[in-house]
Amino acid sequence: MTTVIKNGTIVTADLTYKADVLILGGVITAIGAGLSGDKVLDASGCYVMPGGIDPHTHLEMPFMGTYSSDDFESGTRAALAGGTTMVVDFALPAPGQGLLDALQMWHNKTGRANCDFSFHMAITWWGEQVFNEMKTVVDQGITSFKHFLAYKGALMVNDDELFHSFSRCADLGALAMVHAENGDVVAELSARLLAAGNTGPEAHAYSRPPQVEGEATNRAIMIADMAGVPLYVVHTSCEDSHEAIRRARMQGKRVWGEPLIQHLTLDESEYFNPDWDHAARRVMSPPFRSKQHQDSLWAGLQSGSLSVVATDHCAFTTAQKRFGMGDFTKIPNGTGGLEDRMPMLWTHGVATGRLTMNEFVAVTSTNIAKILNCYPKKGAVLVGADADLVVWDPAKSKVISAGSQQSSIDYNVFEGKVVKGLPRYTLSRGQVAVEDGEVKTREGHGHFVGREARP
Amino acid sequence: MTTVIKNGTIVTADLTYKADVLILGGVITAIGAGLSGDKVLDASGCYVMPGGIDPHTHLEMPFMGTYSSDDFESGTRAALAGGTTMVVDFALPAPGQGLLDALQMWHNKTGRANCDFSFHMAITWWGEQVFNEMKTVVDQGITSFKHFLAYKGALMVNDDELFHSFSRCADLGALAMVHAENGDVVAELSARLLAAGNTGPEAHAYSRPPQVEGEATNRAIMIADMAGVPLYVVHTSCEDSHEAIRRARMQGKRVWGEPLIQHLTLDESEYFNPDWDHAARRVMSPPFRSKQHQDSLWAGLQSGSLSVVATDHCAFTTAQKRFGMGDFTKIPNGTGGLEDRMPMLWTHGVATGRLTMNEFVAVTSTNIAKILNCYPKKGAVLVGADADLVVWDPAKSKVISAGSQQSSIDYNVFEGKVVKGLPRYTLSRGQVAVEDGEVKTREGHGHFVGREARP
Amino acid sequence: MTTVIKNGTIVTADLTYKADVLILGGVITAIGAGLSGDKVLDASGCYVMPGGIDPHTHLEMPFMGTYSSDDFESGTRAALAGGTTMVVDFALPAPGQGLLDALQMWHNKTGRANCDFSFHMAITWWGEQVFNEMKTVVDQGITSFKHFLAYKGALMVNDDELFHSFSRCADLGALAMVHAENGDVVAELSARLLAAGNTGPEAHAYSRPPQVEGEATNRAIMIADMAGVPLYVVHTSCEDSHEAIRRARMQGKRVWGEPLIQHLTLDESEYFNPDWDHAARRVMSPPFRSKQHQDSLWAGLQSGSLSVVATDHCAFTTAQKRFGMGDFTKIPNGTGGLEDRMPMLWTHGVATGRLTMNEFVAVTSTNIAKILNCYPKKGAVLVGADADLVVWDPAKSKVISAGSQQSSIDYNVFEGKVVKGLPRYTLSRGQVAVEDGEVKTREGHGHFVGREARP
Amino acid sequence: MTTVIKNGTIVTADLTYKADVLILGGVITAIGAGLSGDKVLDASGCYVMPGGIDPHTHLEMPFMGTYSSDDFESGTRAALAGGTTMVVDFALPAPGQGLLDALQMWHNKTGRANCDFSFHMAITWWGEQVFNEMKTVVDQGITSFKHFLAYKGALMVNDDELFHSFSRCADLGALAMVHAENGDVVAELSARLLAAGNTGPEAHAYSRPPQVEGEATNRAIMIADMAGVPLYVVHTSCEDSHEAIRRARMQGKRVWGEPLIQHLTLDESEYFNPDWDHAARRVMSPPFRSKQHQDSLWAGLQSGSLSVVATDHCAFTTAQKRFGMGDFTKIPNGTGGLEDRMPMLWTHGVATGRLTMNEFVAVTSTNIAKILNCYPKKGAVLVGADADLVVWDPAKSKVISAGSQQSSIDYNVFEGKVVKGLPRYTLSRGQVAVEDGEVKTREGHGHFVGREARP
Ligand SMILES: [Zn+2]
Ligand SMILES: [Zn+2]
Ligand SMILES: [Zn+2]
Ligand SMILES: [Zn+2]
Ligand SMILES: [Zn+2]
Ligand SMILES: [Zn+2]
Ligand SMILES: [Zn+2]
Ligand SMILES: [Zn+2]
Repeated sequence: MTTVIKNGTIVTADLTYKADVLILGGVITAIGAGLSGDKVLDASGCYVMPGGIDPHTHLEMPFMGTYSSDDFESGTRAALAGGTTMVVDFALPAPGQGLLDALQMWHNKTGRANCDFSFHMAITWWGEQVFNEMKTVVDQGITSFKHFLAYKGALMVNDDELFHSFSRCADLGALAMVHAENGDVVAELSARLLAAGNTGPEAHAYSRPPQVEGEATNRAIMIADMAGVPLYVVHTSCEDSHEAIRRARMQGKRVWGEPLIQHLTLDESEYFNPDWDHAARRVMSPPFRSKQHQDSLWAGLQSGSLSVVATDHCAFTTAQKRFGMGDFTKIPNGTGGLEDRMPMLWTHGVATGRLTMNEFVAVTSTNIAKILNCYPKKGAVLVGADADLVVWDPAKSKVISAGSQQSSIDYNVFEGKVVKGLPRYTLSRGQVAVEDGEVKTREGHGHFVGREARP
Repeated sequence: MTTVIKNGTIVTADLTYKADVLILGGVITAIGAGLSGDKVLDASGCYVMPGGIDPHTHLEMPFMGTYSSDDFESGTRAALAGGTTMVVDFALPAPGQGLLDALQMWHNKTGRANCDFSFHMAITWWGEQVFNEMKTVVDQGITSFKHFLAYKGALMVNDDELFHSFSRCADLGALAMVHAENGDVVAELSARLLAAGNTGPEAHAYSRPPQVEGEATNRAIMIADMAGVPLYVVHTSCEDSHEAIRRARMQGKRVWGEPLIQHLTLDESEYFNPDWDHAARRVMSPPFRSKQHQDSLWAGLQSGSLSVVATDHCAFTTAQKRFGMGDFTKIPNGTGGLEDRMPMLWTHGVATGRLTMNEFVAVTSTNIAKILNCYPKKGAVLVGADADLVVWDPAKSKVISAGSQQSSIDYNVFEGKVVKGLPRYTLSRGQVAVEDGEVKTREGHGHFVGREARP
Repeated sequence: MTTVIKNGTIVTADLTYKADVLILGGVITAIGAGLSGDKVLDASGCYVMPGGIDPHTHLEMPFMGTYSSDDFESGTRAALAGGTTMVVDFALPAPGQGLLDALQMWHNKTGRANCDFSFHMAITWWGEQVFNEMKTVVDQGITSFKHFLAYKGALMVNDDELFHSFSRCADLGALAMVHAENGDVVAELSARLLAAGNTGPEAHAYSRPPQVEGEATNRAIMIADMAGVPLYVVHTSCEDSHEAIRRARMQGKRVWGEPLIQHLTLDESEYFNPDWDHAARRVMSPPFRSKQHQDSLWAGLQSGSLSVVATDHCAFTTAQKRFGMGDFTKIPNGTGGLEDRMPMLWTHGVATGRLTMNEFVAVTSTNIAKILNCYPKKGAVLVGADADLVVWDPAKSKVISAGSQQSSIDYNVFEGKVVKGLPRYTLSRGQVAVEDGEVKTREGHGHFVGREARP
Repeated sequence: MTTVIKNGTIVTADLTYKADVLILGGVITAIGAGLSGDKVLDASGCYVMPGGIDPHTHLEMPFMGTYSSDDFESGTRAALAGGTTMVVDFALPAPGQGLLDALQMWHNKTGRANCDFSFHMAITWWGEQVFNEMKTVVDQGITSFKHFLAYKGALMVNDDELFHSFSRCADLGALAMVHAENGDVVAELSARLLAAGNTGPEAHAYSRPPQVEGEATNRAIMIADMAGVPLYVVHTSCEDSHEAIRRARMQGKRVWGEPLIQHLTLDESEYFNPDWDHAARRVMSPPFRSKQHQDSLWAGLQSGSLSVVATDHCAFTTAQKRFGMGDFTKIPNGTGGLEDRMPMLWTHGVATGRLTMNEFVAVTSTNIAKILNCYPKKGAVLVGADADLVVWDPAKSKVISAGSQQSSIDYNVFEGKVVKGLPRYTLSRGQVAVEDGEVKTREGHGHFVGREARP
């Protein structure tokens, strides 16, 4: 059975043109005028774009004996509802746990996934087993390794471990990734704040100022440079970090920065809300920043010094957040965004004139597909590419609300915001998961996407 | 009659994959495996790329009662021989001459062109006629306007004229372009050098140091910003100018820089050659710079702060150069490069690891096609695109020499340099202009490419 | 008769120590413990500092057949009241007027000056007479030449004139100074604003955005570099200009920037005041900027990339301001500040911890004395130096108000601001001009201070 | 008995003027015209300047059971011979050793010192004892604490220790100092080089590239910022580190950089000398850099982004250097320079026009006296200041040679270099230690200089 998307305007990272798209067996089989098919999706007045790719999610992430609220079912359903057709999640080995073990655990979570997905592997400790298993992990299609410079005593690695792991990535043709905050300084600042009686969620922001992010980013870039590996900096939230990335790029280094939709559109004033729940629900690392940092992030997307917009979707319920009442360091870190990333970026980026539509596609889909080496299977509107597509209706609008969302959490950090620009249809390998705004996802439809190492 | 390119690897600005390319009626009609056609071009071991676009040439340019040596016939033949399938030349009105008049003159030169071409229009004076005719020029498909901040007393415009013209470009949806050197300072430095008896070609370099280029670039960027027009800076030759462009881009401004292949691979030491002819043949503006400036240009291509590699091909013969014996200010400014740009950039950029193959395509073809709004007709390997293609043989090498070149000038600034990476075939709208290294251009095959204004 | 300042703490640009100061014949004759003299000034609890030097005033400046309100009498009285003991005013030749002529006119104004003064000479046109008279001006002790890049059609010089004049300064060992705004762009933006019906004082700010200042600063720096002359940029008001200065200094260039106390403490919101008079009284060039630009200026003072705090004191009365009702371009440019500079900078700089006391002395007095080559006659607390001193009482406070000021204008842009830190005594060459807060200036006491050229 | 320096020109960090200087009891008692005294030193044709202060020496430093070759006797004799009248050495506690213990050991070395001296205390480990003893150390006049980010497994501290120690410095009003190289990366690079058979001295340079210095500098600045402590970065050798310092200063942070005379005048090519001894004698950390890095350091001194020129004098004999034959990591790190710093900087800085004489005084003496809070006892030509003076003869020249030096080492890294500008007299607290070029030091004349904490 063929599906055809008719009467739309195709928008890719580098092109805008009118054409129909024909789909068979989950892939695009023709692009052109006057195509016909068994099932017709009308794209009149709409843009036909590659579905979004969110390269930074934490679905069903273990936390203190429980899990982050969205699993691969509800998370991917939320993704599709917002026009995102692929997520890349982080497999997180516990200290001492083997990488392959962890990977198996993560594969096990995905049985009900509604859209395609891939993994990054985190390097949370170092040893011969890790060194050896990195190769197997790459062979199994996971070619990006995440490192934490924060979360001291838990996920954090030191510079020596970082250099060894980055060097191993270089040998394997893999991508190095980094959560860049100076964990030593964060830990000490946190302790001081608690000691001084600052226990509320606003202290979370005070405990990890932009400086600690800028420093760690700069350090990771140097070590990547020494190791000869390209570097992807997740959740670039501030000018300090952006400056380090920009400076590196100016020197010809291969470094990419990833602002989150939250940092682009929300600011630190959220933490000053007197409602503990309101503030705690917005606790994530790095925290929201001032307006000046926001300006820097937008300019980075415009100039190309920042490359990808993600979410770090890690949804903890209000109940879970409350584990941290009386001690902000115990508030689970994370917010949602998977469902809202595309409409929020369109509304605040494209509709305001900051970004062109082509740049929108680039930063939500195509750039990361290239960086992660799954382009043009993903991130493209090309014959042969997977039919992961969104038919984007620029006239469709809604008010974001937890009450009507797909995500399983009980609030939304964008609550009340009006977005204009939403999917009319979202297709996951040709399967119509959103139809005229109605969600029709199919559990288990999503497959793992393996990726090849660089030569 | 169809032509098929078989067994090659397609390399575009964002993709590398194996596929055949089918051509009919000058356009690409199919891309895929196992295609067949009437004429078969074997691309085994080769890369099939968009033909190069050189956006900066001066063919048959009037000069003191004579003309630059390469006309649209020899120039486009040289272009094709080197894998370039489109040139964009500058229509230069004399002071007081109407734009439409000048445009007609330039159209008149192109009857024997071997490949497609377009024009930029220069704004060399200001007045109501210019203001009015700019619209007609845009309507006739020329949507980029060049301004000279140097050549005082001739082509130079002042800041007031620049601001008016840039504002007009903004209104018309056209692109502003600028030759950025401070003409007042250059004129005075030149006069002082002559007065001090420095009459040789090396004084040309002394008369226009990097500082005057950096300043003018910065100024043009500010004025473009005030006018709200995107800006393209031609022949960015130094860190000073690159810094200004980089700083602007960091602030989200839409500014592009164009290093020339000459500045990327040759340096100021050429002017210190005791042979007057050797030095004079390399006289161009801006002049060649030091190695440190070269490093800056390469880093710019790597990081994306510089976007396009061009040539400013303006070929004056040794006899013409000698007009300036005894007075360097009378040496006609210009060198060749049209034939050598692609092999030189491949050899010094791709083979050295500085640039990926995809970046090579981007900076030689795709980026400028997008900037000039003729993508994907040009600069693409897509169904429906013009079959302006080069089948690039990375194993083919030669020694550059004036003796064996297509260009009509009697020397070559790259004389003796070994390049590895040359066209096996070059196709201009499907017509095979280079076949197994043999030049088979067809006079008059080249057409004018009109471009649309931005909305 | 000797005067002794007892029990104070001497604060200079590089030292803080307790000592008495003995004065005879207008100069300091001893510094040490236990000094005695005929007249004793008690400095208990106070800091004894070099009197302030304001290098940027326009007293009795001609304007449309009238003059700026403060003349050398009231202006220097205001200066002394605020702890400033020397002003440097600008001699402004009319177009075509000789420099010596203008200089004589300026000398004629100074008969009733209460404190010492010097002049800068403005270069408002170019010609052989100007070239020749520059030498005589230098011989007469005026070794700094001001150039306007704005005020098109009036004071503005073009790049060619600028380069010639800067080169002449270099030959004469003089300092080049520049008012840096792009006059062409300002003129055109002004015309557009008026044409669009924006006639109010807020349009003044719109007509000269930070970009035009940054550009002109960058340009002046390049031309000074080419001429080989040190450069002093007056009224640096924004990050754009500061960035250009900073970048130049990083490259080892001798460039200084001068923020005004107004730009450090007031911002653009003043122009949005619905009271026309309120806004118009604050019209000056460059206009007040946003808070982010203020931050940049303070950081510059802290890091040393900006060197001097001045006022550009040019006091026009409300009646004069009203010449511009209905056309902002006719509002005379200028505000007051001479009386408030030192207390405002102390309050907002020293008391807030941004600047040390030594840095306060440096930026209000010593740095400019060195730059203008009248150190240590001025700007020092050293034996042999002129006894231009202020005994600063950090505990004394007042509310700034036009009603109680020395300046002759009928308003004060700092109206209502509380300052803490005021002169207990101000001495002009030993003469006590302020005594326990009471003003006791002596008309005609002030002398011209000639300065030598650099070798 | 009084000494008078007659007929000279006094040059300080901010003044140049003709005056005599009278000395009694080791201090300056008068400055003025026509002074007389018991002993007359003729300064005709000379500059009378504050004696140099070298804030970075390692005299009699323990090393593998032996000591660096120059002790406080020969080291201070060398210093005086070159116009330096004070050294500041580093007390280095062994791991686990108390600070007071180490301090006593260092005091014990100084009995034969020929000029005044002070200490910095190194923090080489962290614990309650260190925390507590820091206060006592400050009380004993040592108010600067050095931290090593390199020398892993020996002196290096980690970020957590650094933050604690910096915070303690902030509480105590002390200065934080840092040797900034990333020790983890250096250790790993060294191991890889050795493993690959690169055992020679040139591998020392490869093992610590500019990037690792830039990174560590940036990190130390961030941590100092978080701790609220001013930071002094020793031996800033490259643009990478200078950039980090410059960026910090631009943001108003109190950070100083210290280039060494070696890095200013020697470059990495020294390590490529085929003579093992030649190269090994130049092994120090950071290593010599390329010419581009040198340019950056000079520009920093000119613009004020770098503040002090030191030597890191740590003299190992050729015999000691040979401990590292076959393994570059065993070559003791250190070179000489104490005797040559002032003449080399004068010759390459002042005589070339890069620095003014006043800047020379600032960077060799006055700046560091202020930073270390011993100004104006040291670093000044003022009444009451210690008579640590050098009478500098700009016409006196010599060829630097180990054969004729005071330092006890058997070579000189500046061997064969001609310097012009040398002491005619050097005075240590009034005692004439160099007289007409002849060295007449007095053993034990040098005293410890205690310094006060900042409030
Ligand atoms: Zn993270
Ligand atoms: Zn995350
Ligand atoms: Zn040009
Ligand atoms: Zn050109
Ligand atoms: Zn002005
Ligand atoms: Zn003024
Ligand atoms: Zn060190
Ligand atoms: Zn050291």
